[in-house]
Amino acid sequence: MKYNILNEVPSKKDIEESKLNISEYAHETPVLTSNSINQIAGARLYFKCENFQKVGAFKFMGAMNTVLRLENTALQKGVATHSSGNHAQALALAAHIAGTKAHIVMPRNAPDIKIEAVKQYGAEITFCEPTLSARENTLSEIIDETGSWFIHPYNDYNVIAGQATCGYELIKQVPDLDAIITPVGGGGLLSGTLLTAKHYSHGIKVFAGEPEGANDAFLSLKQGRLIPSINPDTIADGLLTSLGDKTFPIIFENVSDIFTVSDENIIIAMRLIWERMKIIVEPSGAVPLAALLREKHKFSNNNVGVILSGGNTDLNKLPFS
Amino acid sequence: MKYNILNEVPSKKDIEESKLNISEYAHETPVLTSNSINQIAGARLYFKCENFQKVGAFKFMGAMNTVLRLENTALQKGVATHSSGNHAQALALAAHIAGTKAHIVMPRNAPDIKIEAVKQYGAEITFCEPTLSARENTLSEIIDETGSWFIHPYNDYNVIAGQATCGYELIKQVPDLDAIITPVGGGGLLSGTLLTAKHYSHGIKVFAGEPEGANDAFLSLKQGRLIPSINPDTIADGLLTSLGDKTFPIIFENVSDIFTVSDENIIIAMRLIWERMKIIVEPSGAVPLAALLREKHKFSNNNVGVILSGGNTDLNKLPFS
Repeated sequence: MKYNILNEVPSKKDIEESKLNISEYAHETPVLTSNSINQIAGARLYFKCENFQKVGAFKFMGAMNTVLRLENTALQKGVATHSSGNHAQALALAAHIAGTKAHIVMPRNAPDIKIEAVKQYGAEITFCEPTLSARENTLSEIIDETGSWFIHPYNDYNVIAGQATCGYELIKQVPDLDAIITPVGGGGLLSGTLLTAKHYSHGIKVFAGEPEGANDAFLSLKQGRLIPSINPDTIADGLLTSLGDKTFPIIFENVSDIFTVSDENIIIAMRLIWERMKIIVEPSGAVPLAALLREKHKFSNNNVGVILSGGNTDLNKLPFS
Repeated sequence: MKYNILNEVPSKKDIEESKLNISEYAHETPVLTSNSINQIAGARLYFKCENFQKVGAFKFMGAMNTVLRLENTALQKGVATHSSGNHAQALALAAHIAGTKAHIVMPRNAPDIKIEAVKQYGAEITFCEPTLSARENTLSEIIDETGSWFIHPYNDYNVIAGQATCGYELIKQVPDLDAIITPVGGGGLLSGTLLTAKHYSHGIKVFAGEPEGANDAFLSLKQGRLIPSINPDTIADGLLTSLGDKTFPIIFENVSDIFTVSDENIIIAMRLIWERMKIIVEPSGAVPLAALLREKHKFSNNNVGVILSGGNTDLNKLPFS
């Protein structure tokens, strides 16, 4: 069945329908635990493995949820976005599954490995100069030409509702959580998780970890207004984006706290996950564990869901030494 | 309850009892699949993830099974082995769990990361010159002094029965397998898997992959007699050992075939697993997939269990470039 495009903050029903909407296509990812990391953290951690999701990141859920909600006439004209990251791959695959075309604007200097991944799913790539204005202008031209539907990587209620299904699964998989911690970049995953915890739990606190070099969510939360990052710089390349006008209010109203971490903290947490759990997370995906370890006195003896957001790393450029 | 030490080729009952014996301590590891690797292989592969086992390798099952079978008077005197690899960690942890001491002889040039891992489990390490005779002599002295029980890494029926529980689980987890493929070094995992397939399946064929640079099992199988490796050299550092007089006859009688692969094949397979499945396997653990891909015409459209034997890699020395 076809669900409607969402134009308001997703409700409890919207999240449930989003789960049904994508369940045929998205993996219900497993929850893993590690005794040795629990000992280090002084808490019981439940790692939700979105690194095992399709395209290797949670982004697939939001993209798929949105594409499947488009009316057929809109869907036939294709979908479009600008991204050099996981959203590009996610939208390319979602469009492929839905039998339509994805137009992806990528900066000319995007890594070959990411370009290849997007191509592999059959998307049409348009290259542009590596500036935000060039990306937006190029995307506008494509949308004008093709009539394709713009799917923003996070500032879209359909995307947020898709990401909300991750926390929805986690709460069912681990019924007695005290807290959940996610990374925050543009805020799609965090705002989705906040809505889920609000609708499906009695008092699970939701926290986020954010890189110090891209701390717009931290600053926006503290100052109560949207403050975009200027020249963000961090190894967590999935978290360079700033909150949007749809994600910020949900976060401001619901989040328990946002903790910032250094790139050094991130690399240590990433290495712990790789070595102790034998699974691959990208730097952005290690940010929640890094934040939790830095603030571990706040989680002492708690049951904490830790969302591993993705696992797409270039094995030729690892930060270990 | 206490099961007896095994002095003969493990029977069906011995394998079942070994499973019960260790079930409180060993993980029942998951089976993962990958659509994209299935496409490359032209078969449906079921990856048995012993990289998620305690100490990061299947070796824990054999060590734990043996330690728990020792009579209390023997157990109290401690256990001993020489190893610079996963068996050392496995025996150290098994002894720790059983409340006894592990004496581990390690070559002076063993990597710090492995020495630390063994220390971490509370074992007593004795260093020696990096030659087989020095290792054996040092071990003999320790056994003479302490009366501790020598647990060989593979040429021991208790160890073989412990490793057999991996295939036992796999056959229950994936009921319609056509074949299973394992790596082969000393032959503990392979011979255990062969006994399991013989007792618990109707005709599942068992194959092994072996590095070209340590191809003693391949040569021994073809010539029908035990031919030890001389100066083995391969990136698969868990597979440098040669078959023993207990593992060879089981392998010779039951194995369907042994395929050799180059280090280049191994690195390609390892990278595929890391990139497509987002899980970490060590080079030795990637050998079965490397062999299957090299011989993929033989597995066309089959259901194949692929045993990922371990995940202990030094992240500072990865073979990707």
